[in-house]
Parts: sequence; structure tokens; C-alpha cells
Amino acid sequence: MTISAKRAPVRVGVVGLGRLGKRHATNLAYRVPGAALLAVCSPLDDELAWARDALPEPRLYAEYDAMLADGDIDAIWLVTPSSLHAEQIVAALAAGKHVFCEKPLSLDVAQCEHVLAFAREHPELQATIGFMRRFDPSYRDAYEKVMAGKIGRPFMIRSQTTDKNDPEGFFVRFAPNSGGIFLDCTVHDIDIARWFFGHARATRAYAAGTVALHEGLRECGDVDNGVGVVEFEGGRLAVFYASRTMAHGNDTHSEIIGTAGALSVGHNPRASRVEIYDESGVRNECTPTFFDRFEEAFLHEAQAFAASIGARGERGASGSESAGATLADALEATRIGLALREALETGTPVVL
Amino acid sequence: MTISAKRAPVRVGVVGLGRLGKRHATNLAYRVPGAALLAVCSPLDDELAWARDALPEPRLYAEYDAMLADGDIDAIWLVTPSSLHAEQIVAALAAGKHVFCEKPLSLDVAQCEHVLAFAREHPELQATIGFMRRFDPSYRDAYEKVMAGKIGRPFMIRSQTTDKNDPEGFFVRFAPNSGGIFLDCTVHDIDIARWFFGHARATRAYAAGTVALHEGLRECGDVDNGVGVVEFEGGRLAVFYASRTMAHGNDTHSEIIGTAGALSVGHNPRASRVEIYDESGVRNECTPTFFDRFEEAFLHEAQAFAASIGARGERGASGSESAGATLADALEATRIGLALREALETGTPVVL
Amino acid sequence: MTISAKRAPVRVGVVGLGRLGKRHATNLAYRVPGAALLAVCSPLDDELAWARDALPEPRLYAEYDAMLADGDIDAIWLVTPSSLHAEQIVAALAAGKHVFCEKPLSLDVAQCEHVLAFAREHPELQATIGFMRRFDPSYRDAYEKVMAGKIGRPFMIRSQTTDKNDPEGFFVRFAPNSGGIFLDCTVHDIDIARWFFGHARATRAYAAGTVALHEGLRECGDVDNGVGVVEFEGGRLAVFYASRTMAHGNDTHSEIIGTAGALSVGHNPRASRVEIYDESGVRNECTPTFFDRFEEAFLHEAQAFAASIGARGERGASGSESAGATLADALEATRIGLALREALETGTPVVL
Amino acid sequence: MTISAKRAPVRVGVVGLGRLGKRHATNLAYRVPGAALLAVCSPLDDELAWARDALPEPRLYAEYDAMLADGDIDAIWLVTPSSLHAEQIVAALAAGKHVFCEKPLSLDVAQCEHVLAFAREHPELQATIGFMRRFDPSYRDAYEKVMAGKIGRPFMIRSQTTDKNDPEGFFVRFAPNSGGIFLDCTVHDIDIARWFFGHARATRAYAAGTVALHEGLRECGDVDNGVGVVEFEGGRLAVFYASRTMAHGNDTHSEIIGTAGALSVGHNPRASRVEIYDESGVRNECTPTFFDRFEEAFLHEAQAFAASIGARGERGASGSESAGATLADALEATRIGLALREALETGTPVVL
Repeated sequence: MTISAKRAPVRVGVVGLGRLGKRHATNLAYRVPGAALLAVCSPLDDELAWARDALPEPRLYAEYDAMLADGDIDAIWLVTPSSLHAEQIVAALAAGKHVFCEKPLSLDVAQCEHVLAFAREHPELQATIGFMRRFDPSYRDAYEKVMAGKIGRPFMIRSQTTDKNDPEGFFVRFAPNSGGIFLDCTVHDIDIARWFFGHARATRAYAAGTVALHEGLRECGDVDNGVGVVEFEGGRLAVFYASRTMAHGNDTHSEIIGTAGALSVGHNPRASRVEIYDESGVRNECTPTFFDRFEEAFLHEAQAFAASIGARGERGASGSESAGATLADALEATRIGLALREALETGTPVVL
Repeated sequence: MTISAKRAPVRVGVVGLGRLGKRHATNLAYRVPGAALLAVCSPLDDELAWARDALPEPRLYAEYDAMLADGDIDAIWLVTPSSLHAEQIVAALAAGKHVFCEKPLSLDVAQCEHVLAFAREHPELQATIGFMRRFDPSYRDAYEKVMAGKIGRPFMIRSQTTDKNDPEGFFVRFAPNSGGIFLDCTVHDIDIARWFFGHARATRAYAAGTVALHEGLRECGDVDNGVGVVEFEGGRLAVFYASRTMAHGNDTHSEIIGTAGALSVGHNPRASRVEIYDESGVRNECTPTFFDRFEEAFLHEAQAFAASIGARGERGASGSESAGATLADALEATRIGLALREALETGTPVVL
Repeated sequence: MTISAKRAPVRVGVVGLGRLGKRHATNLAYRVPGAALLAVCSPLDDELAWARDALPEPRLYAEYDAMLADGDIDAIWLVTPSSLHAEQIVAALAAGKHVFCEKPLSLDVAQCEHVLAFAREHPELQATIGFMRRFDPSYRDAYEKVMAGKIGRPFMIRSQTTDKNDPEGFFVRFAPNSGGIFLDCTVHDIDIARWFFGHARATRAYAAGTVALHEGLRECGDVDNGVGVVEFEGGRLAVFYASRTMAHGNDTHSEIIGTAGALSVGHNPRASRVEIYDESGVRNECTPTFFDRFEEAFLHEAQAFAASIGARGERGASGSESAGATLADALEATRIGLALREALETGTPVVL
Repeated sequence: MTISAKRAPVRVGVVGLGRLGKRHATNLAYRVPGAALLAVCSPLDDELAWARDALPEPRLYAEYDAMLADGDIDAIWLVTPSSLHAEQIVAALAAGKHVFCEKPLSLDVAQCEHVLAFAREHPELQATIGFMRRFDPSYRDAYEKVMAGKIGRPFMIRSQTTDKNDPEGFFVRFAPNSGGIFLDCTVHDIDIARWFFGHARATRAYAAGTVALHEGLRECGDVDNGVGVVEFEGGRLAVFYASRTMAHGNDTHSEIIGTAGALSVGHNPRASRVEIYDESGVRNECTPTFFDRFEEAFLHEAQAFAASIGARGERGASGSESAGATLADALEATRIGLALREALETGTPVVL
């Protein structure tokens, strides 16, 4: 993906410098031809210290508002807590900035709709939600094959997001604010299903789940393993699986089944091309986290965002899907994720 | 699986000589040390002609009753249409014969219960239903690993039975009597789930499905692709998938997920150990039918049945599970399969 | 491979009841339709006791000559020490018996030629050497694909026979009489190469080797890991690898490379269809020994031998290749194996 | 591999802008934190035009000498025809520049030695030859596992470089100047073997080969498929395979076999994580060229070179191996490659 960078680079300000924020900032600083990392924003001193050391002379902001006031910044890149996303996106758009925001848009449908309505009044600005799987080379390859008709009509998707078990159960603390396993994990699979199904509308959702290891989740009605069945218009079906308790690693795997064939993406979550032959048999190690699995996707996502804004300038037109998931996509993912959560709680399918 | 055959062999009569009946008869004739194929029964002349030619001098019967009257026969082996199973089992038991019967026991719960009640009065006779997957070496290997605690506590099973598409849709004709995709195909996955879950009780079932290719199924309310979610007591979950429309072959695949690891049985339905490197990439061919996939399982099943009856004689005791699925197992599989069908029809979970 | 058995069965006498002899005897007794196990011969009481217990009333012989004098025996099945093969084959043919003999025919070319000359005078008798890989379903599948032109013209074969390491190094004791690693292990790969190359003539052989673990081998000039390069007429090449020191299991693997594609047989020596997902990654266990790997091949080999002798009777003609490797094949394998050993010793290629 | 770039970047001039040169230039321009692409050099107008368009304002040189005279350039990056490498490296060192040069150093041992002697007089300058496989993440992973003792003592390496067949046989034209298949392709495998064997000395080389498809190669004594066996001191062995005629893609595969296990790198040259299920079975597509296979390796190689020069400045010391293969490594690879060529021509092992 070699990109010419002859037009003026998009000047980006990254907000939030946790683990994922650091990666985004580094990508934007060094690996995205059409982008320049102009500024970073964090309330934490050590994160700003990291930026000073690791990035090429960025402007440092402790306050989001101060960064928005920086007229040299073209685009805001939000890697902040989910609960802040909606209001920070609105503020960025209001300040005349393009905006990229990590998923989810919001766990609240009304809030999602509010952001959409606001964005609709700013068609000159790009607003993208970070469903990075759409930029993973393997998912992209599968998508192109499906679009080219290689498997006939796709009518079923099975997709899973399963994390390596954290014996400390550190994530249990965040469970109450995560929206539950379907909104936190499955939302990626939902987006994949919608993408491969041509953004067909979901019509019904059912879910079941269990607590296999992390009893603390029961308090907030969450599970550490959940399955969901979502029906889409046109006789399309999706089956999702999310887990926090895998022994072998982060295992993100999707299958797209069509009338003339099927595709699997990432069946074996191999960490590399190495196979080990020893007394345990023949084996490969696995990607430990989504970070390792989607390293390239995060980079391509940033490259596509930068390219899309550059192209906007030239076209004087609104952004295309190639920039990634839109606010509308994010709204739909939230809507379906909430339906799965409700189905899990009630034991009854939810009609959408 | 070398078996000594010093005790008198079990003398078997096979009923029904369709494709599967022929295989059972040939196995019993030549490959099951403790068994002797004494007789076969079929209403069709050409099937009897085949038997005369291919088997070692079997007695030939055109009528089931006449075979039951043959006092030299120890065990009846039913490979007849499903609708006859229940009554033929009862007749065999009444005639004092052990009985092996292909699945399903019956599509009707009351009928299943009637057979169970009848069998309970004949504890000296073995009655086994042919869920052959329990005898597949790979399923058996997985089962032993699970029992040995290798994956901790198993709490989730994903299992599928998917057939290669028959472009003629020949099977559509039989759909009205098959009981639908869940009773016809998923019943095997249900039995596998129950087996791995230590015969835990199912508590709730949900299903969804679609007609991807075979429109003729709509008439009888059936689908060619269906998914089911079944909850079991103790926080255990099963997700099933059945399909009639695979492009690549018969793909029977199960995953057993535990608190300390997971097992997959048959992920890639490879036909052999051959891999082909050509312009299409690297590939392996797939087992075209369940026949090819479970060739060994059918043989081991017969060997286990024969061994079990021999052991009964010695123990003077009732048969063990090692002989295969019991009538009670078959009843439960039918009960769950019916619940999935009802859920598919109503769009509502069925409480069991 | 269901075989009708309407003609009179071939009555077989098995000589040698070690581990492999027991398997052959059991196969012939219970699993080969056209064969009947009439007698066994062993100088060891406990082996005869095993036969009495495990086989269906065989005649028991302690002396080979006595067995040869038994006029009811049609075919002799030799599973004896390699050093006895040549003379026992000649004696069997002289007694008017068909003969199957485990590989190798002999480690001495002159002795091989003597047996061939003798057999040529008895064209009415079948003499087969047990290169069982030709009967493995996967090798057979590959062979048929090659013959059907699926990979164009095959010009290169890579083939390996590698055993799981025995930390006791028990085999070191037998090394002096084994003929060395190439005659003991690689001889199977040589036969496979010749088979796939249409029995083309070998023209030059080179070898190199090392002692990785078993120092005791140095005494007799043997190695525990060896590689060989053999050129065949018509610009065909074979590369062989033999090892006694694998950690993961018996790994028998062959690749056949052609002008339009390639085939691999047994790349991953998986023990079953089970994959294990745990902290070590994703893995499969491996076939521990050639016994486990070639269980089916041994059976099909016996079935083919029996079928071939039956067919001889009908045709009144000489045996076909479908019965397995001929004495001439065995002679060539020995000749090439000896050339590899000489090349290893001298560090110089040997012209054949 | 995120690298801080707080020290002044290494200013690089790239020479040669063919396909591989373009990739190096683009990497250095946009993806290597510690490097700045200052200038490019090519005698071809269209290559300079490409640079003007695709790169961030590089200085453009048509003449190598003019570029060497540019005092702002710290390091020269040679992606020129092999026959120019030796003299261009010497000139770069003479001009006081660090130098990176694509493999091979030279096909002539005396010339290699001359460059080494010259470089020895300039210990303050880094000189690296581009054996990029050392920077491939999977090879790197395997290397670290071997160094950590995971497979015991490595004693055998099997490594292959096989290219997808070009039906046009375009490469045949270049064969006379390529040095033959072992110097052109196998040289990478030789470097890998030396790397994993701790740079042990090779003691003997043997080779054989065949022309499977490209008859034109016979004229210059080359082959399109060749195998080599190289013995190293300490009882270590390497077996190489090179081919120009694969149907399925570029298949670069290495196995490192040790006394306690083995590693395989790239057994299946999968192009992505996608698997396709269709009438041909289950398959994955393959990397078409070494370009696709080693995209990451080229990038990491450049990053390591830049980091190494930066570190030199700080240490005031000579470069470490972490910068990649040294001139001495390249000399040894050439020496072994020439021995394989001689062995192929003479049919006799060459003692090194």
C-alpha cells in the first residue's frame, strides 16, 4: 500500500495515549504518508512525557478544548474512554475538524442518533468509527472475493471475538461500563456481518451466555462467554461467539458462507509462519491479543482515513465508505449489540 | 483394535440393504471378529441378489417376521426407514433378540417412550441406537482427553453437520418425512453435546434458519441451513449448525470448549493426507459424504456392539454405555431436536 | 475396499509372530475376505501361545520346514529377521507356495539376484515384498493423481522416513545387522520414488549423514540422520531424509513435484482429526510409530495379495503389480540403498 | 518494532529504482523512523520521474559519482545490478559513506575478499549485505527460539527457495549473468543455514539438478531445479532446494531440526489468513513472489540498518550483527554457492 504524499498532509491531533492511543500516534507520526502528527492530548503527565520522547516534536495538550482551538489541526483522532466518544465527536465537528473515533460510538442509541444528526449538518467533515477489521488484509481479501461473486450469494456468517483468559480477571472491574460482552466484543463481529451482507437490516436477535470462570461478572448481569443469533432481511443469518476465557490466545475468526462456497478468515490464529515440532506434537503459537492480531489493520485504517480526507479536498465531495465504518454503521452495531444484551437478559428474541 | 474372538460369535441378522445396510452387512460379515452375519432381510430382490453374491452364504429373508422367527439369530441389525424403527425394535425385543438400530429411534417422543418402557422389561437384551460418531477414533480421542481433564470443565460445544450440496435436490422429496433438518442432521450433534456434557439435561432451545438454495423445502416448513442454540443445566451451552448446501463436501466438525483449553474434531474435513499444490494454491480434497467420513466409525460401532453382547453373556449383566447410545440417549436427542424444530417454526425459545 | 470372497480363500501360513507378525496374522485371520489363516510358525513358545489364544484355531508350527510340508497351505507370509528372507523365500517357492515377505528382500545384491532367478523358474507362483506404503490410501490417492497427469510430468521426489527418538537407543544394538539407516529406513522412500517415476533406473547416488544423539552408531559406521540424493534417468531427482531422532513422532512424508503442480503426502503426521487449543498454542498430536501411521496400509496390502492370488487362479497368468512390489523392485531398492551407504562411507557419489 | 527517532536521522541516498529499489526508497522515505531519504540515483529518466512524484522531494542524481560527492548523505543504499555491487561498495566507503547493498556482494570470491579488505580499513563505516530473511518476523521468531535452546542443538537445516513458474521464461535471458540457480536463489538459504548454525564453516558441498521446463538454461549450464547438500563442521548438515518452476507461488520454506525438536518456517506459503472452501476442497492462495512474502522483512531490514548506524554514532564503535549480514557473511555465501555450482557441473563433491 504505497501512497503518494504529494498533497499537503492531513495534520492530526491524537486524544488519549493509552496503549492503543500510543499505537495510533506512532502510526500517524511515522507510517502514514498523507498524515502528519501535529499534536497529542492527554490529562496524564506520563503519557505526555512518552509523547515528548517517542514522537517527532508534537504539540502537547492536557485539555481537549485547548486542542480543538488549535487552528492548525485538520483532524481529531479519539482514543478515549467510550463514555466520552459521543460528546467529543460533536465537539470536534463543531470545531470544524474531521474526526476519527475508536469504537463504539456510544452504548446509547439516542446518543448515537444525536451524533449522526449533528454530523449530517457538517457534510464537509469526515467522521469515521474505528472498526479496524475492515482494514485487515485478510478480511479485505475475503471481502473482495465475496464482492467478486466467488462464493455466490453470502447468506450466513459465523464470527467470533474471543480473548485470551486473564487469570487476574482485571477486565471484570470495567464490565459495568463496557456495555457487556456483546457491546464490547461482538460489536466487531456485528460490523463484519453487516459489511459482508451489504449493510442489510437486522430483523431479530437472540442470545445466550454463561459465566465459565469470572464469577464477578454476575453482579452486572454480564457473562464471560456468550453466543448470539441475528437474522437479517433477505434470509441472511449471523451467529456470533464472544469469550473472555480462551487458553490459547486472541482468536478472532469469521466464516462467510455462500451458495457456491465459503471463506474462513483467521481460522487458526497463528502468531507467525513458524511451526514447532516437539513432544507435544506439531503446533503454532497464537496471537496473544487483538493488538498483535490487528497491527496491520490499525495502520491501514489510519492510511485510509488520511487518504480519504486528502481525496475529499480534491473531490470537494463527501467521504466514501473506503474511509471505514460510518457513524450510521456504528449506530446499527450498537442497536444490534443492545438487542443481544436484552435477549441475554430476558431469554427472549428481540425484534429489531 | 484387535479383538480376540474365542467366545462364540454373536449371530446377526441385518434388515435393510440400502447403501448403509450393505456397509453394515459387509462389516459384520468380514471385519467384526466377535460377530457372524447369519442372515439378511430385504423386500427387494436386487438387494437379496447382492447379498447372495457379496456375503458369505447368508440366509435370505424377504419378510421381517420370518427373520425374527429364526432361532439361530442372536441380534437384529436395523437399517430400515426411520418410520419403522420403533415398531421393529419392539418386535425384535419381543422375539428375544438384541437389537441395533440406526438413528433416529423415532421422531415422536411418545413412541420413543413406549420403546424405552418395553425395553426396560427386557434388561437381558441389548438395545443400541446408531450414533456412530461416538465410535469415530477422533471423537473418541477427544472424549478421552475431556474425561482426563485436559481442557478443564467443558462448558460449550459447537458442532455442525453440513452436507455437500446436491444440485438435483434429491433429498427435498424426503424432507416431509425426515423430521426437518434438526431431527435429520443435528440429532448427531445433539448426541455429541450430551455425550461430552455427561448427559446433562437440556433446558432451553432456540433456532433460526434459511432456505439458501432448495426452495422446495418451504412447503414443509423446512430449511436447508439452520442454527440452534441449546442451553444445558450447569451453565453449559451448545451451538449447532446444519446445512445441505456446502460446496466442498461433508463437513462434520465439533469444538469442545473448556475452562482450560479447547478441542476441535475435524476442522478441515480432509479426505486423506494428500495436499495439492497448483495454480489454485495449496489445497486438500474433502470427504464427499458422511459415508466416507465415518467409515471407521461404522466398523468400530459394530465391533463394540458385538463385544458388548459377548461381555453381557460373561457378566450376565446389562450392557454398558461402551456399546453406544442407549434408547434413553435417543429419546433425549429426539426431544431436543423437536424443540429446535418448534423454535424454528415459532421464532420463540422452547423450554425443555 | 469391500472385496467379494466367493472363490475359495487363499490359505496362508504366517512365519514370525513378533509385533508386526501378530498384526499380519490378525489381519489375515479376521479382516482379509479372500484369505484364511491356516497356520502360524514361530520358534518361541509365548508367540505360539498368543496365536492359540488370539487367532481362530490355527495350526501351530515351531519349524519352518514342517510348515512348508503342510500341503493345505497355499501361501507363506514371512515376517522373520531380514537375514533369513532370501533363503526362506526360495524354500517357499521350492515347496510350491506363493510367498509374501516383509522388506528387505536381502541386503546383498547377489542374494537378491539369486532369488529373482529362482522365482523366474516358478512363474506360476506369486512373490511379493512388503513395501506397504504403496497400499496406504493417501499414497495411493497421490499415485492415481500423478498417473492421471494432475501434476504434469513428475521430475522430483522428496521423501523422508523419520522415527521418534528412542531415548534408550535400543535400536543401536541392531544397527550392525540393519544394513545402516539407508537400507533400513530409506529403502521405503526409494521404493516410493521408483514407483512414482515409473520404475525409472537410478544413475547416481550421493549421501551425507551425522550422528546427532546415538554415539554408539559410530562403531558400525552408521548415522542417526542421513540425507541422500539419487538421480534417475530422464532428468529425475530424488532427495531422501532418514532420521532416528525426531521429538514429535514418526514423520513419514513425501512430496512429488511435477511440471504442473506438486503433491504432498503426510506433511503433518497428525494422529487423528483432533486439534488441541491450549497455552502452548494450536496443535495436533502425531503418529508415534510407523505401525500407527500405516495400520491401514498393512491391511490393504494383505487384501491385495489375497486378491491377486485369487485372480491368478482365474487368469492362469502371472501376478500383476497390483499385488505390490516385486522381487525386482526389492532388488533395485537394495541396490540404491547400498549405493547410498557406500556414498556415505566414501564421501563420493556412486554411479549405478 | 516501534523505534524512537529522537537522534538526527540517517540521511540516505538510494541507487537504482527498479521494482525493488522503489520499495526500498518508499520504505526509507515513509516508514523508517530513524532515516531520511535525501537523494535517489538512476540513469533512467522514468525512474527519476517516479521518484519526483512518489517521494518527498528527494535530490535526484543521474550519476553515482555525483551522489557520492553529496556531503549531506550519510549512507548509500545500493539496489543496482549485481555486477556493479563490489565496485560501488568500495566507492561508497571511499567517500566515507555507510553502505547497504542488495545481495550478492559479488559472484567472484577474489572480488568479495577485496571489498572485505577495503572495508576493514574503514571500521567506522557500516557495510551490510541485504539478506533480508534475517529480518522476516517468522525467521526471527525461529532464530530466537533456537538461541533459547527450544529445539536442543540444531544439526540439520532444510531450506528452499522456489519461485512461481514464469511460462514466458523471461528469466532465462538473465541466467548467464545470474551465476546460476545456487548463487541466485540458494544463496539466501545458505545465509539462513549459516545464521542458524552460528556461522559454522562449511566443509563439503554436493549438488544435482535438472531442467524441468526451461530448455534455454542448458546453454549456460544452468538448471531450473537444483538440490544441494552442504556439510558444516561439527556434524551439521544442510539440504537446499531451488526451483524456478513451481505452479503455486513463491514457496520459501526452511526447517531447522535439533536434538530436542524442530521448527518449520513458512511451510505453507499462505498469502493471507483466508481459506477458501469450494468444489476444489479447502485451500489457501499463496504468496506469488518473494516481494509479497518478504514485504515486512525489507522494512525491518531498513529499520535495523538505520538503528544500527544511529547506535554507532552513540557508541563510536563498530556495527553489530543486528544490522544484518556482514560482508564476511556475504563472502561465505558466495563461496558455498560457487561450490554448489561446481559440484553441479562436475558431479563431484567440492571440499571447502
